[in-house]
Amino acid sequence: MKIEQTTLEVDGSNAELTGYILDDSAEMLKGKPRPAVIICPGGGYFSCSDREGEPVAMYFASLGYQALVLRYTTYANGGLEMPDLSKPLPPHENDIFPKQIRQLGKAVLTVKEHAKEWHVDAEKVMVCGFSAGGHVAALYATRYDEPVLMDYLHASEEQLRPAAAIVGYPLTDYALLEKDLEAKKDTSPMDYAFMKASNVAFLGMESPDDELIEEVSAVRHVDSKTPPFFIWTTATDPLVNPVHSLSMAVALANQGIPYEIHVFGNGMHGLSLASQASAESQSQIKPDVSQWTEACAVWMKKNFPLDLPALGDFEKMIASQNADKE
Amino acid sequence: MKIEQTTLEVDGSNAELTGYILDDSAEMLKGKPRPAVIICPGGGYFSCSDREGEPVAMYFASLGYQALVLRYTTYANGGLEMPDLSKPLPPHENDIFPKQIRQLGKAVLTVKEHAKEWHVDAEKVMVCGFSAGGHVAALYATRYDEPVLMDYLHASEEQLRPAAAIVGYPLTDYALLEKDLEAKKDTSPMDYAFMKASNVAFLGMESPDDELIEEVSAVRHVDSKTPPFFIWTTATDPLVNPVHSLSMAVALANQGIPYEIHVFGNGMHGLSLASQASAESQSQIKPDVSQWTEACAVWMKKNFPLDLPALGDFEKMIASQNADKE
Repeated sequence: MKIEQTTLEVDGSNAELTGYILDDSAEMLKGKPRPAVIICPGGGYFSCSDREGEPVAMYFASLGYQALVLRYTTYANGGLEMPDLSKPLPPHENDIFPKQIRQLGKAVLTVKEHAKEWHVDAEKVMVCGFSAGGHVAALYATRYDEPVLMDYLHASEEQLRPAAAIVGYPLTDYALLEKDLEAKKDTSPMDYAFMKASNVAFLGMESPDDELIEEVSAVRHVDSKTPPFFIWTTATDPLVNPVHSLSMAVALANQGIPYEIHVFGNGMHGLSLASQASAESQSQIKPDVSQWTEACAVWMKKNFPLDLPALGDFEKMIASQNADKE
Repeated sequence: MKIEQTTLEVDGSNAELTGYILDDSAEMLKGKPRPAVIICPGGGYFSCSDREGEPVAMYFASLGYQALVLRYTTYANGGLEMPDLSKPLPPHENDIFPKQIRQLGKAVLTVKEHAKEWHVDAEKVMVCGFSAGGHVAALYATRYDEPVLMDYLHASEEQLRPAAAIVGYPLTDYALLEKDLEAKKDTSPMDYAFMKASNVAFLGMESPDDELIEEVSAVRHVDSKTPPFFIWTTATDPLVNPVHSLSMAVALANQGIPYEIHVFGNGMHGLSLASQASAESQSQIKPDVSQWTEACAVWMKKNFPLDLPALGDFEKMIASQNADKE
């Protein structure tokens, strides 16, 4: 494995792309490329969570895929500190939408440009994300073919198209978010303050207007050119309504786009792999929710299998010797 | 993740230790160390197979463990080429037993010496291996406290003791091997030639005497100081008799050493993870056999869990705020 660090500059802000690039081997793929997944961690647009970065990359690597983590621009700019939510957050005008999806677009182009060196199949570059990172991935996968990305990155639809999107507990519908926020104002003041501040971090304002809501809602941009989606969340997520995931599935279904969705009955927000590998505490280890990883592995193997022949070299030799004898 | 390459010299031969070292994170283990696994690939002592190296390391890394691959000395010395088995193999006198277990001992000491830098819990360094590499791991785990290792490496029992051994389709009993070879002479001439040549590669001779058989048979060295074992193989392995695994389990059972064994009903030799991640061909993808990886994950989590608190920081804060209100 080689660890490949690449800095991607977009309008004066740097995103960091970390590639976990599996070695080629004369005993396995013998020079043939692998599908790749670019992972966007969550963190409410305040930061990029380690829990949804390297551990997820290791999971995809363990399945035989090239994995990369994109640390896109956030409010804390690479730090972890949460801002003081007791007072209105001053916007960081340079760190807001659409910078994050442009950084993901640049990451997709970078992986495709390095396809040979990184043993990547350029036709099979997937995007992935969790929570806010799931929002980045879903929004990118539904808008890659729009001027906000194509014109800015001077790239074609074909160059920018991801082969699929894999999203965990994503935001997909900012109209739903605004509606939920009104309901949370009195019942969950902490979640309310967090989500309002997250809006400031991502949009530069607490309350987006209808036009901006449309701009950042992946559910409004699903069309016949949207790639397949794998979506999962939990029915009891107290922070991001699971209906964001369900609405995305409905939008995909209505357009006839292949999708898979798994909503587990119980589980807090932000479980990542839901195993000890991504946990801060025992409370984040949930074997039931962790089943998403196995379902995703089956889905990836079905849709993006490694390019392996039916028989290995030794078996072919034996078969040929036996044929000679007959 | 950092890739750490270390060359380990033993009597003029170099072994290569490749560490896949997971990053520490303020959001996960917060400076606390992880258990580690040193993996010895198989390859009949002719070579170290890529299929049992990096893919296996990725699997352990995906579970949250530090993983390292040891490319010990073999006949091909880092190459892949198989010797011509149609004529007797000239021995490589400098590349034979006990060099391989001494290299593994040096690897264990190296990991423990770098425990702080590599975020490793020095009390929880496991050894692992497949086929010939399973032999190296099993032999090391049963003989770490004998002069062949302690005297040569100038190290104590405590320094050399592995916390556990994880072995797939290992050789453990050279008396059984010799008996099987006699039977194979006529029925499986190719397997016969391969195993005879493997003896030359590892022992410097085709037919070891009783003393050497005793020296290299892990089943003869199990005692009360042997660490726990996780063993798996397939009942139909045509090359390494599954009774090597069963006999090892019996030897451990008789000494009261904790062990777990899984013998799957069907499967060829050398399946590694039995998934596409370690396969050369579709024929090496066996979902039934691949269950060993999940069983091993459960076993590791039970015996060597990551050191995580019951609740995360955010949950503790909420709990404390609720307590204040009461």
